[in-house]
Amino acid sequence: MDKQAFAWRIASRPTGPVSARHFEWIAQPLPMPREGEVRVRTVYLSIDPVQRYWLSPHATFGPPTEPGQLMPGRIWGVVEVSRSPEFRAGDRVAGPGAWATHCTLPAAAAERVPDWPGIPLLAHTSLFCMQALTAYFGLLEIARLRATDTVVVSAAAGAVGSLVVQIARIAGCGRLVAIAGTAEKCRWLREELGADAALDYKAGDVGAQLDAACPDGIDVYYDNVGGEILDAVLARINGHARIACGGYISHYDTDAPATGIRNFAMLALKQARAEGFSCFEYVPRQGEAFAALRRWYEEGRIRAHTHLVAGLERAPEVLADIFRGRNIGKSVIEVSPPGAGSEAS
Amino acid sequence: MDKQAFAWRIASRPTGPVSARHFEWIAQPLPMPREGEVRVRTVYLSIDPVQRYWLSPHATFGPPTEPGQLMPGRIWGVVEVSRSPEFRAGDRVAGPGAWATHCTLPAAAAERVPDWPGIPLLAHTSLFCMQALTAYFGLLEIARLRATDTVVVSAAAGAVGSLVVQIARIAGCGRLVAIAGTAEKCRWLREELGADAALDYKAGDVGAQLDAACPDGIDVYYDNVGGEILDAVLARINGHARIACGGYISHYDTDAPATGIRNFAMLALKQARAEGFSCFEYVPRQGEAFAALRRWYEEGRIRAHTHLVAGLERAPEVLADIFRGRNIGKSVIEVSPPGAGSEAS
Repeated sequence: MDKQAFAWRIASRPTGPVSARHFEWIAQPLPMPREGEVRVRTVYLSIDPVQRYWLSPHATFGPPTEPGQLMPGRIWGVVEVSRSPEFRAGDRVAGPGAWATHCTLPAAAAERVPDWPGIPLLAHTSLFCMQALTAYFGLLEIARLRATDTVVVSAAAGAVGSLVVQIARIAGCGRLVAIAGTAEKCRWLREELGADAALDYKAGDVGAQLDAACPDGIDVYYDNVGGEILDAVLARINGHARIACGGYISHYDTDAPATGIRNFAMLALKQARAEGFSCFEYVPRQGEAFAALRRWYEEGRIRAHTHLVAGLERAPEVLADIFRGRNIGKSVIEVSPPGAGSEAS
Repeated sequence: MDKQAFAWRIASRPTGPVSARHFEWIAQPLPMPREGEVRVRTVYLSIDPVQRYWLSPHATFGPPTEPGQLMPGRIWGVVEVSRSPEFRAGDRVAGPGAWATHCTLPAAAAERVPDWPGIPLLAHTSLFCMQALTAYFGLLEIARLRATDTVVVSAAAGAVGSLVVQIARIAGCGRLVAIAGTAEKCRWLREELGADAALDYKAGDVGAQLDAACPDGIDVYYDNVGGEILDAVLARINGHARIACGGYISHYDTDAPATGIRNFAMLALKQARAEGFSCFEYVPRQGEAFAALRRWYEEGRIRAHTHLVAGLERAPEVLADIFRGRNIGKSVIEVSPPGAGSEAS
């Protein structure tokens, strides 16, 4: 039995690109839950762009972080020790944990992972997660997708973007245009996810590429990046366009001032709407989204795309890789084997 | 009887500040209506910031303009000759006319000005007009004003802004902060219109002034200007803030690229919404807005504020003056006396 837990502690706040030097690998006694808590063996750890943003001193959502504390992150795992009547050893749970081999959670914060036949735990990490709420409600409720819309999605090969592309295809839209940062991702978006066009923003002028890909203008933009791509899209929106402001990856891994958006006035000229939203606000309605995603998954219409890396020690590198565009789908660390049972006291 | 009509023709497109040299004063035979048209003696001519934008080659709303044609503008006047069964000589009408002493309108485009006791024709130009629809629906429907909101209004002494301030006071809000460009306007906004604070954006850092005036952040921003003020507001919005994008005066009188908006990402961080709209879309519902405005006017709760200048020959100068911040309230040219009857054919 593992007598020690391992974890990544925040060593310092990055001011530029995040890397392993901003974290410290620590070993500590296996945490023992108090009354009302459970100890979870981490199986999967979610690595998300927003975790970089949490490290910023001016982050305004997500858990506040301070150097010296464990790096927070969402986990899926198996209850090893329960001091709550709601859980037993061996139960599969998800919750707000940390970059750690073992996490102690209040029972109220642990969510039972449903045992849906044919849906492995790994699929839960990318389909029944916060990013899925972000994609689902952002596209369908904030952007109010319509059947004739030309839809543009940025960071389309990422955790959120790859779901937005798939949901747009399923829900039905006019033309579906994905933006990503490598030729390989673009090919994947066209061939695997069914995008009508996929643009490599590093391969040439985004505006000209959008002109070619969206001859009838843009009705919906699902924005995961902000910056110059947003500006190029704004210049090409149609009347009553809707921009779902999902996140601003281009701002996260730097302290540099954000690129100024020169085409903001297009909102007024086109009677368009740009709206931010938070997946946290949709948690009370997650059952609705998850039911749809489960059905689509079982019907083979949507797939769980994971960039799976084994070993907690690689967590900092996997976070940094997101900002180098090295993942396709949701980045997940396999911290311990999903198949192993509850082996602890 | 006036045998000639006088008018301003567009001489050239301004690339920087508009002035009289972009227009040409012409005399032409008094226009004779064809079947289904009416000839209107112009009493009042609306001079609006958007008219400068109409002169831009890239304008996307309003009438397309070309050098050589008459400068378009909304008029209120008296029917002199009617060739439609719907109007008779002497009827008061409003409609899309021109910078001209006489305008020929299709009867379908002419709107009868209601004869409401105690409401002079001049009050119609500022209260029962497109700017009033912009103010009313922008504040109440787009920004969805709530009783506890801290509301900020830019270009608050202008035609739209001065109505937004008054409507916000009547409809009820938490704190009402007006932004204008002179100390005189700020005093007027506080003392006459009831703003809790009025900031002179030319007198110092807008961000610092907003910090002082909005200690609890900003819930609603009624934006008439765009640019740096928008950026300063975005940095201070509260969760679920709403930005009504009414227009972008700071962009109109120049061909220079717009200031980049650095704080766009605040929309995502604050689950906020920025939404453009057009008064044209609210024309079908104008009766609802005008009924409220009429009631408030009759109750003495709202006033018609007009920057009235006599003489059509001054129209170019009055348009230019808007961009020099020289008007308080709606800029209107008195082209002919309102009291005179129908004296023509």
